[in-house]
Amino acid sequence: MTKIVCKLEYYGYFCENNTSKAVDLMKNIEEYVSLAEKAIKDMALPGNPAGLYEPIRYGMSDGGKRLRPALLLAACEASGKDCGIALNQAVAIEMFHNFTLLHDDVMDNADLRRGKPTVCRQWDDNTAILSGDTMLTLATSLLIKDVSPDKAVRLLEIFNRSAVDVYEGQQYDMEFERRDDVAINEYINMIRLKTSVLLGCAVHIGAVMGEAGEAVCEALHDFAVNLGLAFQLQDDFLDVYGDPAVFGKAIGGDIMNNKKTFLLVNAMSAADGSDKEELRYWLSAPNPFPGEKIAAVTSIYNRLGIDAVCRDSIDKYNSAALDCLERAGLTADATGFFKEFDRMVMSRKK
Amino acid sequence: MTKIVCKLEYYGYFCENNTSKAVDLMKNIEEYVSLAEKAIKDMALPGNPAGLYEPIRYGMSDGGKRLRPALLLAACEASGKDCGIALNQAVAIEMFHNFTLLHDDVMDNADLRRGKPTVCRQWDDNTAILSGDTMLTLATSLLIKDVSPDKAVRLLEIFNRSAVDVYEGQQYDMEFERRDDVAINEYINMIRLKTSVLLGCAVHIGAVMGEAGEAVCEALHDFAVNLGLAFQLQDDFLDVYGDPAVFGKAIGGDIMNNKKTFLLVNAMSAADGSDKEELRYWLSAPNPFPGEKIAAVTSIYNRLGIDAVCRDSIDKYNSAALDCLERAGLTADATGFFKEFDRMVMSRKK
Repeated sequence: MTKIVCKLEYYGYFCENNTSKAVDLMKNIEEYVSLAEKAIKDMALPGNPAGLYEPIRYGMSDGGKRLRPALLLAACEASGKDCGIALNQAVAIEMFHNFTLLHDDVMDNADLRRGKPTVCRQWDDNTAILSGDTMLTLATSLLIKDVSPDKAVRLLEIFNRSAVDVYEGQQYDMEFERRDDVAINEYINMIRLKTSVLLGCAVHIGAVMGEAGEAVCEALHDFAVNLGLAFQLQDDFLDVYGDPAVFGKAIGGDIMNNKKTFLLVNAMSAADGSDKEELRYWLSAPNPFPGEKIAAVTSIYNRLGIDAVCRDSIDKYNSAALDCLERAGLTADATGFFKEFDRMVMSRKK
Repeated sequence: MTKIVCKLEYYGYFCENNTSKAVDLMKNIEEYVSLAEKAIKDMALPGNPAGLYEPIRYGMSDGGKRLRPALLLAACEASGKDCGIALNQAVAIEMFHNFTLLHDDVMDNADLRRGKPTVCRQWDDNTAILSGDTMLTLATSLLIKDVSPDKAVRLLEIFNRSAVDVYEGQQYDMEFERRDDVAINEYINMIRLKTSVLLGCAVHIGAVMGEAGEAVCEALHDFAVNLGLAFQLQDDFLDVYGDPAVFGKAIGGDIMNNKKTFLLVNAMSAADGSDKEELRYWLSAPNPFPGEKIAAVTSIYNRLGIDAVCRDSIDKYNSAALDCLERAGLTADATGFFKEFDRMVMSRKK
């Protein structure tokens, strides 16, 4: 990863009409990721029973991008406090995220996660379930560790609301895989719940730790939720329209799996006549030749203009994210950081 | 269920040297169970996604004995406050308990729970996992609902510590099933973690809601943990030595399943020579005739005096429970209630 923000650009700058107290607090993304990584590595877990805690260490130690805890730490500093006060919360949000991965992998019967065997393969389903449960409880303990009772309650309310959103999103995701009539707004709501809300939760918690006012917390939360939506739609888009050399993986995987993406949901809603028939054919074709199915479905998307619809939606959510960021009224330093974060996330190729 | 405590006996009685403020607060066990049942029935859950919340309603609505929430409410009133203030916490502890049942049933691949199909059978494993996760988060939300921040943090610390104990107990239980060298103190520690601690947690939370002092909270907690141990050992005992007509189910099920009970762990530790050989034979006998295996293993238990050892341990933990109850220094009314609760639990036949 290259350095994203040149701190010197912002040194000494002072934005008078904003709520933050300091302007030279912000680190760059790499540094927040490193701090999160170190806090995760340093976290204290009991030794026994090893069969319960070893899978937790394994799940937490693999090469996740640590975007959620990094965002949390950055939001704390953007609100004017040193992010060292929010390390427990950063570990908590990553532990929650990894708990959902342990359980999702059981539900999906997944073999690999980030190139390594999943916990349910390295151990077994029961271990993944029970170690996951433990991670959820440990996450709530970490969340409120060493903070004032008032703040603890506020943090837990934000956290629990987001956690329930994530479960609801996962439930909708599983239900949608068995449905052919998923509406576009249902799909957007599902990805908002399943993935975007936790990004919002991370920055919200960071902002609360940094003593930001309610309006700033809300604006930063909305920035992250919208960015998460744009990111997820872009993920759907790149799986079909990405350059495989740049995207880093073969394209068309979602098409081959009949995955209910933004593209497919839109196509099912827009197609009629022969397009609808052809789409139905490919969705139920037994053992189709991959190249043929991917080309055919992509052609349907193209005829229906789904690529443009998807690009427009990505732009819409990304613009909304940047509007929310402006609304937060952070220092130029902090605003610059989150803009750079947005650019990094939206220009990612894998 | 018959009325357990005749309230009139205690009316007007006043015990001067104790910490509670009122003497005529205590209801009988049935009434606490009814209050808990009503609070569970009245709890507000979202309607959608129904696939997530319907299994939660199903899991919470079946015929559990509601002992944990009833104990919680009683501990609140024993500490001098009307138990109406602790209804959310009562639902929380029952929801946590039922969450563990949903996940345990997945891990055990169980078909039935309280005579009804388990959630993982009525729906599927994924539903039981995800609805269970939701119950754990909802339980922590209910726990701190409408209480002061100071109290919320205290409640959550008690709750989370107990939750982790329960997971550790479940992990040990699963590991012990694959081991032949489980020590007696390991077994006691496992059942303490897996089942007793949550009874302790329930009365502890009730006492905190009732504004009891730390010493009272601790004494009541220890009462419930010891009672839980006595109860679990009695469960092991009755499975072998119970009167099937009174016990309510066929005896010998644990022997047939080679379940690591207090009796088997003791026998494996005490047996030598031909007893050890015979025990090993029955533990590995393929498809033994039930009557024969149960009679043979029971004979080994008898020869080794395991029945007396078990009875002594039950008495020891029950005496410890009653000592803790005295130490709590409650009103005669409240002490009488918990003594009656102890008698009810220890004289149960199914």
